Amino acid sequence: MKPTERSKVVRSPNRGHYDKDSLNKVLDDGYICHVAYDFKGSPIIIPTAYAREGDVVYVHGAIKNRMLNSMLEQKQATLSVTHLDGMVLARSAFHHSFNYRSAVVFGSPFIVDQPEEKNRVLKLITDNILEGRWEEVREPTEKELGVTLVIGIKIDEASVKIRQGIPMDDKEDYELPIWAGELPVTLAYQSPITDDSGVKGLDVPDSVNNMLAKG
Amino acid sequence: MKPTERSKVVRSPNRGHYDKDSLNKVLDDGYICHVAYDFKGSPIIIPTAYAREGDVVYVHGAIKNRMLNSMLEQKQATLSVTHLDGMVLARSAFHHSFNYRSAVVFGSPFIVDQPEEKNRVLKLITDNILEGRWEEVREPTEKELGVTLVIGIKIDEASVKIRQGIPMDDKEDYELPIWAGELPVTLAYQSPITDDSGVKGLDVPDSVNNMLAKG
Repeated sequence: MKPTERSKVVRSPNRGHYDKDSLNKVLDDGYICHVAYDFKGSPIIIPTAYAREGDVVYVHGAIKNRMLNSMLEQKQATLSVTHLDGMVLARSAFHHSFNYRSAVVFGSPFIVDQPEEKNRVLKLITDNILEGRWEEVREPTEKELGVTLVIGIKIDEASVKIRQGIPMDDKEDYELPIWAGELPVTLAYQSPITDDSGVKGLDVPDSVNNMLAKG
Repeated sequence: MKPTERSKVVRSPNRGHYDKDSLNKVLDDGYICHVAYDFKGSPIIIPTAYAREGDVVYVHGAIKNRMLNSMLEQKQATLSVTHLDGMVLARSAFHHSFNYRSAVVFGSPFIVDQPEEKNRVLKLITDNILEGRWEEVREPTEKELGVTLVIGIKIDEASVKIRQGIPMDDKEDYELPIWAGELPVTLAYQSPITDDSGVKGLDVPDSVNNMLAKG
């Protein structure tokens, strides 16, 4: 993808990436994206679930969802996915930073309205919450599909920005007796909490166990 | 804070909060916010470091930073902070969700240009990367302050949305032999990585040890 004025990384351009592999990796590692749209002249940002497939990011919501309908009316969608990977602890306050991976996507929204395709996309979104979960649960009814708006966002343009590794201090600061380094952070999955208000004695399913095994 | 049409939570209104305590808690628990601004008719979202103090959220960047300058020109700023707390695993695909805490803030940007105040605000932002870090490192020089643009965003309006706890399924689905529950997730701090390209043999500092002790 060739960056335009809109998507080009200007600050720290060496951190910018425009290839599909980098983009797909950042998008596929995430659970929640932030979507921006215009509301009567002010930008609004809303976090929402999503899934990527090919060059399309899918989102969904209630049929009257303002964010989704605004996107469709405005015929454009902007979304971002960001992963925090660590605190970059330099010798100088000035060079403190985060290690992160972020993607900003500009795309063209379209409605997914054919019920079979809608169901297929909802599987993608559900499996992006937890891989393999769809097969374990009750699929949507016709009524549930009917009250759900599913939108695909064809990726027109995107940029990825990645910072990783140790701090970069000014040359003279390396002589200071100040500890520097990185404090890595990651998302950690904890023990599942069983909802015992239904049928009792059910085993924790494969989807959960597989996620815990992967860490 | 009284919600307006812009900030009112319409979907799942029981998850909406408009009090300052809820807002401050969500903002103070975060490291990276997403800022939205208009770029020639398309919304852009950029993740960035921040800190909150009172009714102001502070952000910073290079003096020519497009996001910061666009905010100032447009005389408005929108930002969001979101925490993912867990996967909500219902009996039906339809009721799958995330547990999360998110804040959306609409504010009025202003430049922080008095050097002493600028330095004070950079301390807030550095300490929001890692509490207590500012005292351990070299403070900004006059030159570094000169190339840094620091912006305060006076919070005019905000909404908080929180989902927590077990899934809510349709009544008849509680009879299905399908495991349901929550898979909690959290940010986990890992062992610090020392940058040994400067002075050797320095101890890991209190800021890092305190964070690891807190978990």
